[in-house]
Amino acid sequence: MKVAFLGLGNMGHPMAQNILKAGHHLTVWNRSRDKAKDLVAAGAKFADTPAAAVRDAEVAFTMLSDDAAVEATVLGEHGLIAGLPRGAVHVSSSTISVALSQRLQAAHRDRGQEYLAAPVFGRPEAAAAAKLFVVVAGDAKDVERCQPLLSAIGQQTFVMGSEAPMANVVKLSGNFLIASVIECLGEAVALVRKYGIDPQQYVGMLTSTLFAAPVYKTYAGLIVNERFEPAGFKLKLGLKDVRLALAAGDGVSVPLPVASVIRDQALEGVANGLGDKDWSSLSLVAALNAGLKPR
Amino acid sequence: MKVAFLGLGNMGHPMAQNILKAGHHLTVWNRSRDKAKDLVAAGAKFADTPAAAVRDAEVAFTMLSDDAAVEATVLGEHGLIAGLPRGAVHVSSSTISVALSQRLQAAHRDRGQEYLAAPVFGRPEAAAAAKLFVVVAGDAKDVERCQPLLSAIGQQTFVMGSEAPMANVVKLSGNFLIASVIECLGEAVALVRKYGIDPQQYVGMLTSTLFAAPVYKTYAGLIVNERFEPAGFKLKLGLKDVRLALAAGDGVSVPLPVASVIRDQALEGVANGLGDKDWSSLSLVAALNAGLKPR
Amino acid sequence: MKVAFLGLGNMGHPMAQNILKAGHHLTVWNRSRDKAKDLVAAGAKFADTPAAAVRDAEVAFTMLSDDAAVEATVLGEHGLIAGLPRGAVHVSSSTISVALSQRLQAAHRDRGQEYLAAPVFGRPEAAAAAKLFVVVAGDAKDVERCQPLLSAIGQQTFVMGSEAPMANVVKLSGNFLIASVIECLGEAVALVRKYGIDPQQYVGMLTSTLFAAPVYKTYAGLIVNERFEPAGFKLKLGLKDVRLALAAGDGVSVPLPVASVIRDQALEGVANGLGDKDWSSLSLVAALNAGLKPR
Amino acid sequence: MKVAFLGLGNMGHPMAQNILKAGHHLTVWNRSRDKAKDLVAAGAKFADTPAAAVRDAEVAFTMLSDDAAVEATVLGEHGLIAGLPRGAVHVSSSTISVALSQRLQAAHRDRGQEYLAAPVFGRPEAAAAAKLFVVVAGDAKDVERCQPLLSAIGQQTFVMGSEAPMANVVKLSGNFLIASVIECLGEAVALVRKYGIDPQQYVGMLTSTLFAAPVYKTYAGLIVNERFEPAGFKLKLGLKDVRLALAAGDGVSVPLPVASVIRDQALEGVANGLGDKDWSSLSLVAALNAGLKPR
Repeated sequence: MKVAFLGLGNMGHPMAQNILKAGHHLTVWNRSRDKAKDLVAAGAKFADTPAAAVRDAEVAFTMLSDDAAVEATVLGEHGLIAGLPRGAVHVSSSTISVALSQRLQAAHRDRGQEYLAAPVFGRPEAAAAAKLFVVVAGDAKDVERCQPLLSAIGQQTFVMGSEAPMANVVKLSGNFLIASVIECLGEAVALVRKYGIDPQQYVGMLTSTLFAAPVYKTYAGLIVNERFEPAGFKLKLGLKDVRLALAAGDGVSVPLPVASVIRDQALEGVANGLGDKDWSSLSLVAALNAGLKPR
Repeated sequence: MKVAFLGLGNMGHPMAQNILKAGHHLTVWNRSRDKAKDLVAAGAKFADTPAAAVRDAEVAFTMLSDDAAVEATVLGEHGLIAGLPRGAVHVSSSTISVALSQRLQAAHRDRGQEYLAAPVFGRPEAAAAAKLFVVVAGDAKDVERCQPLLSAIGQQTFVMGSEAPMANVVKLSGNFLIASVIECLGEAVALVRKYGIDPQQYVGMLTSTLFAAPVYKTYAGLIVNERFEPAGFKLKLGLKDVRLALAAGDGVSVPLPVASVIRDQALEGVANGLGDKDWSSLSLVAALNAGLKPR
Repeated sequence: MKVAFLGLGNMGHPMAQNILKAGHHLTVWNRSRDKAKDLVAAGAKFADTPAAAVRDAEVAFTMLSDDAAVEATVLGEHGLIAGLPRGAVHVSSSTISVALSQRLQAAHRDRGQEYLAAPVFGRPEAAAAAKLFVVVAGDAKDVERCQPLLSAIGQQTFVMGSEAPMANVVKLSGNFLIASVIECLGEAVALVRKYGIDPQQYVGMLTSTLFAAPVYKTYAGLIVNERFEPAGFKLKLGLKDVRLALAAGDGVSVPLPVASVIRDQALEGVANGLGDKDWSSLSLVAALNAGLKPR
Repeated sequence: MKVAFLGLGNMGHPMAQNILKAGHHLTVWNRSRDKAKDLVAAGAKFADTPAAAVRDAEVAFTMLSDDAAVEATVLGEHGLIAGLPRGAVHVSSSTISVALSQRLQAAHRDRGQEYLAAPVFGRPEAAAAAKLFVVVAGDAKDVERCQPLLSAIGQQTFVMGSEAPMANVVKLSGNFLIASVIECLGEAVALVRKYGIDPQQYVGMLTSTLFAAPVYKTYAGLIVNERFEPAGFKLKLGLKDVRLALAAGDGVSVPLPVASVIRDQALEGVANGLGDKDWSSLSLVAALNAGLKPR
């Protein structure tokens, strides 16, 4: 298939690479060209604008950092929407607001273009290993058409309905749940530490019994060892996602009181210098609020 | 070994049974005698008071519903503490406050008796199958002495330090974490439902990927199917445990903001008739607050 | 002075009227023309677009319902910004986001126009009586120039610095404080009612002692009598303002945990049919959550 | 009248003094005798135990620091209850839990003694000036009988019903409302400070307009000037009262989400060294969480 890929950051680069490896024709675009070097060396073409990159595409992926970047890349000057052929599919994998996804859906409809939201769960290592979990929503025939590409980047695809923005709701609520694991483990670990209990033993017990899930194992380790650098996912980006989850709730009048707590704790973290550390440092906010010192 | 077991409720009865099956001499006591019938038929003795029950015991278990019951049974008239021989061990498996556990520890020390806190994780089915997870703290030699009994009731024992009340801290913080899973899933499911996403598909995705832990599988099923009766663990008891977790935090000045949210949501549930339903009905509070109807 | 006034709603209409009464030349604009009838009868001119309305103005007020309305009226087609002469002052009295106020400030600067933010405290009755409290920020010389007009609409002017958006911060934080009075009184009244205490006597005691402030007297009466209609200020608008206060906090990394609670309670109210009632109905959410029935 | 007064701390001492000044026969008791010196010099008798102090009393006041002190003084060895004549009245002015007040009510009933709860609003200066606000509940005839004494200590008496513990509910909910003023002002001041607005000007505006109540004036001054020492009322005591308000809510299933937030912020303050500072230092928690430095 003829594929375009816009956005070659931590996540986008390995995703594009896996699509190339799977044998598709790939055109890439990125704000700074040097991120594309190795892909070009491996056979991809580089385009100077989003519009140019998608000119001949059957499917065009976007994987960008936030709403502003997606808005600029898709709807801005020389944007994707100006170049994408009628009938071609825009697959939006970025973690963006439900509201922007709804606008993209409407904009593509107006121009006879197809639109899928296909955000992913997984950190950069998972993207490199093609082990992402892909959550996709949109027209069934588009999902089917794109399935080979989704299979090239992930280990499993979950279809969440025919309205694309639903996949964004699922992604944001999923990130909220991950954040809640960090926050709650952070509170619990602060509690046991202050009672003099060995936190390593404590989380060992949890993650070998009721909480034997990948997300607990990953984050319990980071929290107990206070290994907040290098950041796999920065606290300020985690804050952004919780903000978007709250906005998604606001949009349909759903209170999310734990998300509100997390937002406030994350703001406290950012206000006190943790914004560029891993979002597991949310646990450090809980520890400091309890009067504990970093170890 | 000569063992006494006080408290034959949903949890205590199968635990006592497993100790009997393992070949120990068992004397039991319960407020209402009829709960003991089958155990007596199987060879246990019944005693009329806690003090009488523990008179010859090497190890005496208590498994009672709350602080008041433990206080009455251990420190009250004809209580355990009056009968237990010097050097014998009281193993307290009830979910009680850290403060009461500290008082019990001191009271036993004063009389030359030994004291372990050994609360358990698992619902009645797990107790029947001897599949409980046992969290124990106290003197190492007492833990060693009691290990055969702990092995008779559980699948694994986790030692959490030499001060008995530490095991209570671990149990309460663990119950807080379970409650947080219910609360957060409840919020997330309310959100996706209000967007028209199939909640079954949603939790299916979660529990087959990042959240593939027993606690998520169990509660996601109860929440999505709104199967709140019969109650495996009542909301009012869940509220009690969150209250004790908050009190444990208060005792050493540790704020637990998510526990505070859960407390308030649980109070709302109890105020609106959910107290005797399963504590997974905490998710119903989130749904109702979002303007959703029970299905 | 030559004054333009854009937005003739509940608040804008009486403000415009008071400016006219004070003897200024007034041109008005409103989306629906009929709101302007009596003003035109009293000597005002009506213009068909915002741009036309401000063409000759020395000072142009805007008093509109939200960010979207202000954005359309000021920055949209035939917007204020296209018509306002260089050196003339735009006085923005709407309750808008700090972010939009910052954009307006920049846009006016680019065109050599002056910009003041001058939001007001007070309900429609106060606007009619020219008893508003005006909070203004911006260039000192512009404030001085506009003072006669501010005096025509309010009983007192408070200058809050030379950067216009500061006045918006003050207004939003003030509305947050009013909302907090409603929320906290709502919680306290639910508590005393459930104990069987006469709420009328209770708030009578409060408002004649420590809490003898206008805001407590006004809202305690509405809350205790559950007089939520007609709405002086709708809950959904109150929710909007709390959302903007939280966004103002977010913009400079300031957690506002009580504002988060209010947001969640207001969302619950809106989700359950209270959106068009007075925002004092926030107290009804507290009552219902406590299992109380509306009286 | 023959009056006993137990507890001569910051509040109790001036209250006892005012009763003496009003011409009543006074017997006092205090844990440390030296606090009573000047009262004895002025004509009061000193008794060695609570029981002895109340032996001939018609009315016996208690004004002690917390539940534990009241429990020991009233129900403990040589306690008030053992000495108070049948038909005499115990007036409990301490800020205690609703649960303890209910126990005292029952205990006095059992012995044919009368019981009023009469907590007060006001700081030590107000007690000295006999300007307290007294909230009283209990049997109407007892209230009437004690009115001359209540008038001797306060500027106004508010009767809140015939069940004594209702006065404790009112006192605790009142203290919650004061705490909410501190917390919310703290959040708002942190917000405006971070935007560079002069906090003095900001609170000046608030307290001369909508928030022109004594409680706002007092606390806004302390907050803006960060004058947290000497403590008029310590944060750890404020935390105690919020804890009791939450317990009062819990007792009748009333969620108090803002009280929960305050509890968590106060715990954070205590964990970080503010426990002995004035409870207006709750605002410092808000400031620090926003990344602000103490001035």
